[in-house]
Amino acid sequence: MLNKNYPLPMYYQLKELIREKIIAGAWQPGGLIPSERELSEQYNISRMTARQALTELTNEGLLRRVQGKGTFVAEPKIEQALTRLTGFTEDMQARGVESKGHVLRLELVTAPALTLRDLQITSEQPVMLLERLRMAKNEAIALETCYLHFNNVQRLLQEDFEGISLYNLLTEKYGITPTRAEQQVGADLCSQREQKLLNITEGAPVLRNRRVAFDQRGRPFECTESAYRADRYVFQAELAAL
Amino acid sequence: MLNKNYPLPMYYQLKELIREKIIAGAWQPGGLIPSERELSEQYNISRMTARQALTELTNEGLLRRVQGKGTFVAEPKIEQALTRLTGFTEDMQARGVESKGHVLRLELVTAPALTLRDLQITSEQPVMLLERLRMAKNEAIALETCYLHFNNVQRLLQEDFEGISLYNLLTEKYGITPTRAEQQVGADLCSQREQKLLNITEGAPVLRNRRVAFDQRGRPFECTESAYRADRYVFQAELAAL
Repeated sequence: MLNKNYPLPMYYQLKELIREKIIAGAWQPGGLIPSERELSEQYNISRMTARQALTELTNEGLLRRVQGKGTFVAEPKIEQALTRLTGFTEDMQARGVESKGHVLRLELVTAPALTLRDLQITSEQPVMLLERLRMAKNEAIALETCYLHFNNVQRLLQEDFEGISLYNLLTEKYGITPTRAEQQVGADLCSQREQKLLNITEGAPVLRNRRVAFDQRGRPFECTESAYRADRYVFQAELAAL
Repeated sequence: MLNKNYPLPMYYQLKELIREKIIAGAWQPGGLIPSERELSEQYNISRMTARQALTELTNEGLLRRVQGKGTFVAEPKIEQALTRLTGFTEDMQARGVESKGHVLRLELVTAPALTLRDLQITSEQPVMLLERLRMAKNEAIALETCYLHFNNVQRLLQEDFEGISLYNLLTEKYGITPTRAEQQVGADLCSQREQKLLNITEGAPVLRNRRVAFDQRGRPFECTESAYRADRYVFQAELAAL
């Protein structure tokens, strides 16, 4: 299947061949793939070449290496549609993925300058900080920092956020119906804190989002900054011509 | 303005203070800001503290350091709406930003497996590879790799792509009207090649996109992979409740 007379380098040919097997479904997510040694014998290439192919596919997120166990086909990245205003909990429910949120901080704070501007308030007005580590299938996927401002926001201190949807809670108990949001998606390197909490390597990339959400009266009630693991998450948008 | 008795660290207070000046417009994009020494004297803090604030704001993309010249307020990141199907050229025109595209490669190729699947073709069918370095205001912003397939795609070899919109060309000369697209936005570290071409530091983050575009008959004609500089680019989406 690999051709030494072909203009593409051998490691690249092997990469494409492995990718084809995964796309075609011959190799399934979670399945163990042949070792470097097995690949080098099977395709008559050096172990270095096999290793380069596996390393690049691992970096692309298509394969996963588990120390002492071998190389596995990675679960596909979670795709989040960038059209509907939903929270993480609903998103995961819609996908049938078990999700949790661990509350790391819940306290009244002075919000940063940019957040005050986006929430259209002054530094004297109360803002609730809700920081949550979002988990899917018991794996940390995102660190989410919400700043919330509305009437009686301090009542949130009594709520239990483990495993519930913030948007559902706001709609049912606080008279706040999330109606639309403006979201920015950027890329960044993880901070030290994110690296530890998300259990990723130092200098790993994250998708860094900033969302300002508005209620049924057009008032901004939420400003959220989040860091999603880039190896587990991708945003999906549907674009239309004018 | 900085308060040593306040629970937030001094470097963080200075960061917020500088951010406020930029948000309020007191410090304008392109303007030189005070040096580490000046900030440390003005606010009675150590130069280390001033440096930490400037370094973090530079990493966030709010400030820009120019070797031997000082620290400047960065131009705001380019925001690209994730709703309308447009190319880079139209995008920049709509913003009044002068843009160019340098063609790095234009050749018939065998497309990678995933691209063949997305274009719904076999490896025997001709695919044109068009690789362009996208420039805004004479600065490299993105590396874009398009795979194109349609009737007479080989005629593209005669086209001059410098400074023109691919989508306009396809509409006017090839009977292909871009109608809708599916786009994925992820984060990644830059490759060595991207690092050199985009003039960014090793290990810098990029927004990595993959777009499949469909024509007026619903046929996929384009599959594009692009890497945007994360320090210069952010995607913008408008989310609505159901």
